[in-house]
Amino acid sequence: MGEYQHILVDRDGDTVRITMNRAGRRNALSAEHLAELLAAFCVVGTTDAKGIVLAGAGPVFSAGHDFADVAGRDLLGVRGLLRLCTELMRTIQTVPQVVIARVHGLATAAGCQLVATCDLAVAAESAGFALPGGKGGWFCHTPAVPVARTIGRKRLMELTLTGDVIDARTAQEWGLINKAVPDDELDAAVNDLMQRATRGSGASKALGKQTIYAQIDRPEQDAYALAIEVMASASQLKGAKEGMAAFLEKRAPVWPD
Amino acid sequence: MGEYQHILVDRDGDTVRITMNRAGRRNALSAEHLAELLAAFCVVGTTDAKGIVLAGAGPVFSAGHDFADVAGRDLLGVRGLLRLCTELMRTIQTVPQVVIARVHGLATAAGCQLVATCDLAVAAESAGFALPGGKGGWFCHTPAVPVARTIGRKRLMELTLTGDVIDARTAQEWGLINKAVPDDELDAAVNDLMQRATRGSGASKALGKQTIYAQIDRPEQDAYALAIEVMASASQLKGAKEGMAAFLEKRAPVWPD
Amino acid sequence: MGEYQHILVDRDGDTVRITMNRAGRRNALSAEHLAELLAAFCVVGTTDAKGIVLAGAGPVFSAGHDFADVAGRDLLGVRGLLRLCTELMRTIQTVPQVVIARVHGLATAAGCQLVATCDLAVAAESAGFALPGGKGGWFCHTPAVPVARTIGRKRLMELTLTGDVIDARTAQEWGLINKAVPDDELDAAVNDLMQRATRGSGASKALGKQTIYAQIDRPEQDAYALAIEVMASASQLKGAKEGMAAFLEKRAPVWPD
Repeated sequence: MGEYQHILVDRDGDTVRITMNRAGRRNALSAEHLAELLAAFCVVGTTDAKGIVLAGAGPVFSAGHDFADVAGRDLLGVRGLLRLCTELMRTIQTVPQVVIARVHGLATAAGCQLVATCDLAVAAESAGFALPGGKGGWFCHTPAVPVARTIGRKRLMELTLTGDVIDARTAQEWGLINKAVPDDELDAAVNDLMQRATRGSGASKALGKQTIYAQIDRPEQDAYALAIEVMASASQLKGAKEGMAAFLEKRAPVWPD
Repeated sequence: MGEYQHILVDRDGDTVRITMNRAGRRNALSAEHLAELLAAFCVVGTTDAKGIVLAGAGPVFSAGHDFADVAGRDLLGVRGLLRLCTELMRTIQTVPQVVIARVHGLATAAGCQLVATCDLAVAAESAGFALPGGKGGWFCHTPAVPVARTIGRKRLMELTLTGDVIDARTAQEWGLINKAVPDDELDAAVNDLMQRATRGSGASKALGKQTIYAQIDRPEQDAYALAIEVMASASQLKGAKEGMAAFLEKRAPVWPD
Repeated sequence: MGEYQHILVDRDGDTVRITMNRAGRRNALSAEHLAELLAAFCVVGTTDAKGIVLAGAGPVFSAGHDFADVAGRDLLGVRGLLRLCTELMRTIQTVPQVVIARVHGLATAAGCQLVATCDLAVAAESAGFALPGGKGGWFCHTPAVPVARTIGRKRLMELTLTGDVIDARTAQEWGLINKAVPDDELDAAVNDLMQRATRGSGASKALGKQTIYAQIDRPEQDAYALAIEVMASASQLKGAKEGMAAFLEKRAPVWPD
């Protein structure tokens, strides 16, 4: 599925696994790496795959931005890099597939931002999460955007101001990830969650995911105005009609997609 | 208190209990059922009752929308149904009474939306909560609106994408409900919370509840601008003056309402 | 550091402690007390201190507004008092220092608002938190603003409607504070968190904190638009360049501020 230098893209049944594959650089997100991830998500987004697993090869999930690719950039250069990174985050939320982050080792800075951005996240118990930018002289300004929308405010301030690592159990308690599991059960847990999250009509879940991100930041009545229109339209789709008919006729549904 | 076909409305002291009473249909929310609930909340909202308990008769709290009433509707028909449902949700938040959801059995789809919308919620430990629409070919687009404003984002995505049921303990941990209690203590726990939530000046709590929903979705400084005006005005009401006088004079207050 | 009647301001190394010192009035926030706190935060905000600890002398952290100073005020008088209080809250979020609430005893009403507003909060296990206004005839309208942005909605409604006290462990679970610690470890825990939250470049953390509050209430894409600009600009600062250079050269950074 495409020619890439920094990532691996493999399809297995209805699920595509996108693997950050710069293990020697701890999957640091250089511009080229980000561009390949963006391209891969865009391409897979046009296929009939139902789910995408985002994983990292080597000892860590991702160490975030690649300082070797940042240090020499001027203002416009860094701005362009961050806009590329943000475009990747936005695409993860707009592709029709369910996206699960499969986290092991460390997910730091923009690596932690990826975890916060994916629809769902499962981590090995030995995994750690950090927003260390403030400790290092810059600051995790953009990673704080999705993390602020995933965990509580006091915990966000602790993560960003201290830069310290939290473990996977804490990340689960705070709601940054869905589940922490024993390391040797990570792939099984990701597969189980993906199976549960993608069963049924793929089209209805795609529309559902996209609508949630479209309404979640709006005032409640504005959110309802949007959700009502989508839900009313969706009721006329074949999938919804089949689901309701099957329920009323007490038979198994046959999804149209 | 009114003539209803699908619900029961009973007043006991300062509390009114509104009971969804379509047990044979698992308290599914047909248009007629929604309209009666809306009417009941509007009527009780004009009385001097201090609290409203929303409960369900039969084996479950509510199974959500009634597919028998959805399946035959065209776009405009479903749109009207969802607008009616949303008007009920808005009314629950704007009536002056404290509204507690008393949850047993299952609260699914729009039933779960009711739980997220009520000011407070207490559930039997055996209760379950789900947003199963995505599994069934449609999607819980509108139920996701208040649930998104009640629990964290990753947990919202898990509920909506998997459609799986979470138990009452999990619902409490996630903040969807205030408390899970042993099944045979459910009514006592609801009564205890209602007593604590309604003691003191009813007028001040009514204004307080309404102001919270008015400010909660706004940027913080806009929220303050609103809350300052309400709080300053409220300081001039008899209840506030009596409360402060009683405090300063170290005596029990005598509420004016 | 300044002449104050109601508060103490002491600097120890890089940290300034601001102590509410009206123990006989349970650190109630009269207009004069609020004005001194505001002045102190503004003054310390212009210094090179890296952190501010907000503490209370005597048996409690703060009992909130001083009814003796509210009861006689007319509408404009209370409005002015609340605007002053809100200005203090806004200043806590805009000073460049990391602000930690050191909580013991009770933090109620505007005292609880201070806890919710500070960047971080550590409490003694015996501490309690409440928004009791609704029980007393007025309502904690403005304290509910930052509390609503710190804990979940159902818990906010329980706090404001019941007025009951929650203990420090519950406050930690709900995310109102970062940590509850044994009473005799409170100062050590505050110092430890302050050390971790202020190490590294002070300028980068100041910008980071201010940017988080600027983006946190905006829709996600608006928040990114802001965070990208700040983060790109910040990449050109000496601190960021030194941090990246030190990382790439595998040496300890020398911060410019």
